[in-house]
Amino acid sequence: MLGLDPDPGALWPGSERAVRSDGSASQRAAEAVLAHCRALIDAVAPACVAVKPQLARFEVLGSAGWDTLRALIAHAHSLGLLVIADGKRGDIDVTARAYAAALIGGIDSPFGWIDGLGADLVTVNPLMGRDALEPFVTEARRAGAGVLVLVRTSNPGAADIEDLTVGDSETVWERVAALVHELGAGGVGETRLSDVGAVLGATEPGHLARARELMAHATFLLPGVGAQGGRVEDLGAAFLPGRAGGLVSASRSVADAHRSSGAEPATAARAEAERLRETAWMLSESLIGAG
Amino acid sequence: MLGLDPDPGALWPGSERAVRSDGSASQRAAEAVLAHCRALIDAVAPACVAVKPQLARFEVLGSAGWDTLRALIAHAHSLGLLVIADGKRGDIDVTARAYAAALIGGIDSPFGWIDGLGADLVTVNPLMGRDALEPFVTEARRAGAGVLVLVRTSNPGAADIEDLTVGDSETVWERVAALVHELGAGGVGETRLSDVGAVLGATEPGHLARARELMAHATFLLPGVGAQGGRVEDLGAAFLPGRAGGLVSASRSVADAHRSSGAEPATAARAEAERLRETAWMLSESLIGAG
Repeated sequence: MLGLDPDPGALWPGSERAVRSDGSASQRAAEAVLAHCRALIDAVAPACVAVKPQLARFEVLGSAGWDTLRALIAHAHSLGLLVIADGKRGDIDVTARAYAAALIGGIDSPFGWIDGLGADLVTVNPLMGRDALEPFVTEARRAGAGVLVLVRTSNPGAADIEDLTVGDSETVWERVAALVHELGAGGVGETRLSDVGAVLGATEPGHLARARELMAHATFLLPGVGAQGGRVEDLGAAFLPGRAGGLVSASRSVADAHRSSGAEPATAARAEAERLRETAWMLSESLIGAG
Repeated sequence: MLGLDPDPGALWPGSERAVRSDGSASQRAAEAVLAHCRALIDAVAPACVAVKPQLARFEVLGSAGWDTLRALIAHAHSLGLLVIADGKRGDIDVTARAYAAALIGGIDSPFGWIDGLGADLVTVNPLMGRDALEPFVTEARRAGAGVLVLVRTSNPGAADIEDLTVGDSETVWERVAALVHELGAGGVGETRLSDVGAVLGATEPGHLARARELMAHATFLLPGVGAQGGRVEDLGAAFLPGRAGGLVSASRSVADAHRSSGAEPATAARAEAERLRETAWMLSESLIGAG
């Protein structure tokens, strides 16, 4: 799974040639970002099932960034890829419903139907509790989409709150995992996977077996492979329910592969994406064979 | 402090007359939302110090919503009001910096300087820990802005995670409060208030005295007054460091005041905002007098 995390100051060579407008800096940056992301998606599409745009990188380009995001989602869909809108939103009530509508299905209004971005999965922050998750689950389920809840993230600061011990031995993240399992119970499909999944940092593979005990049916999104130090080889527990149980996410290690290999960017990105896919595939095959 | 939470299906009468374009549904809805919010801001500006746009309501309108948000922020600033971008973002590293740049100061790029939205304060989610807060604090401090960290929110689900007891007696929210105090230590100004504040639901005033013990210098943003059941009269502890120690936030109770009073919307909104301000003012006066 390809993370889209475009930095306007570090795009693939040639992206700036796509800039045609004499508009504002944000418009021109957005055109270049669009060209970069399209080239990256085209290069790795055969080796991945989904793209994960990091919403912050588009919001920083203002309204032009939002249009770019919409164009990229359409492009990814045209290639048969799923889109994971990584915005880590977390709010309640009408606000949560508005976020879900913005990223997934849209809203009706007196001015006509207003399309959402059409994401297939959205990342959500559970700090505010069950009532911050339910509106996202409801909207996603209605639209045939899914939700990925932050359970145990890949950053050092995850120790500050997520790893705190509550009661005798349970951690905050295990409590969140239990909530994910409960909310997903109504959305387990024929694949045995639920429409409520979990984000679990690939940098702490020791947590994955416990996470799988707590969330038997959840798809695990596993960011942190590559630049952040996670290794696909360590993520076996994620794949236990079947091949689709784990979505390995890499961003910079794929987009920047040419910087270490010296190859042309698209070639280097595809090679790195293929390598990650092969590793995850063999791992899931061996587990399913053994299971 | 006025929350801006516009529902395209429940705007003030006449807002649709501002729609001039024959554009898409989202463009027309955005024009009406802009007219509604401008009228609301104009009505209550004399009775408040800040407006707090709920970002979800603008994102659901797509790129037209983002432009509307920018126009509203400029309008609020032209009236001398502070702007609190309520997006509850939470992420790390380059992503957190991009969110902060999008909402506050902007970024430099090979295509020129790209302006951020220019918010004076932003709400931030602390689940991912210290490294999810520091980039926001750094960017805000650089730009002369501030950060408001979700500490104990006003919704029932706050009990699910924020109220969990860690160790002997401390709660998750108290741990977050300690982090807010630490991060704010470097930004305490002449007002004795720090540039790192806290969001504390007005629906649980029992927590405010404890929150003030833990965060002596933090500005408290107090949502949940009015429609959610919080009463200004119960929020005394928030104002202890001085009048600016507490920012009382009301959205629907002000915007929808005409529905119960029968008065013209602008008149009803201003009257309700004046009433809230008077109550908060008397409360802070009596506390400062007694302190």
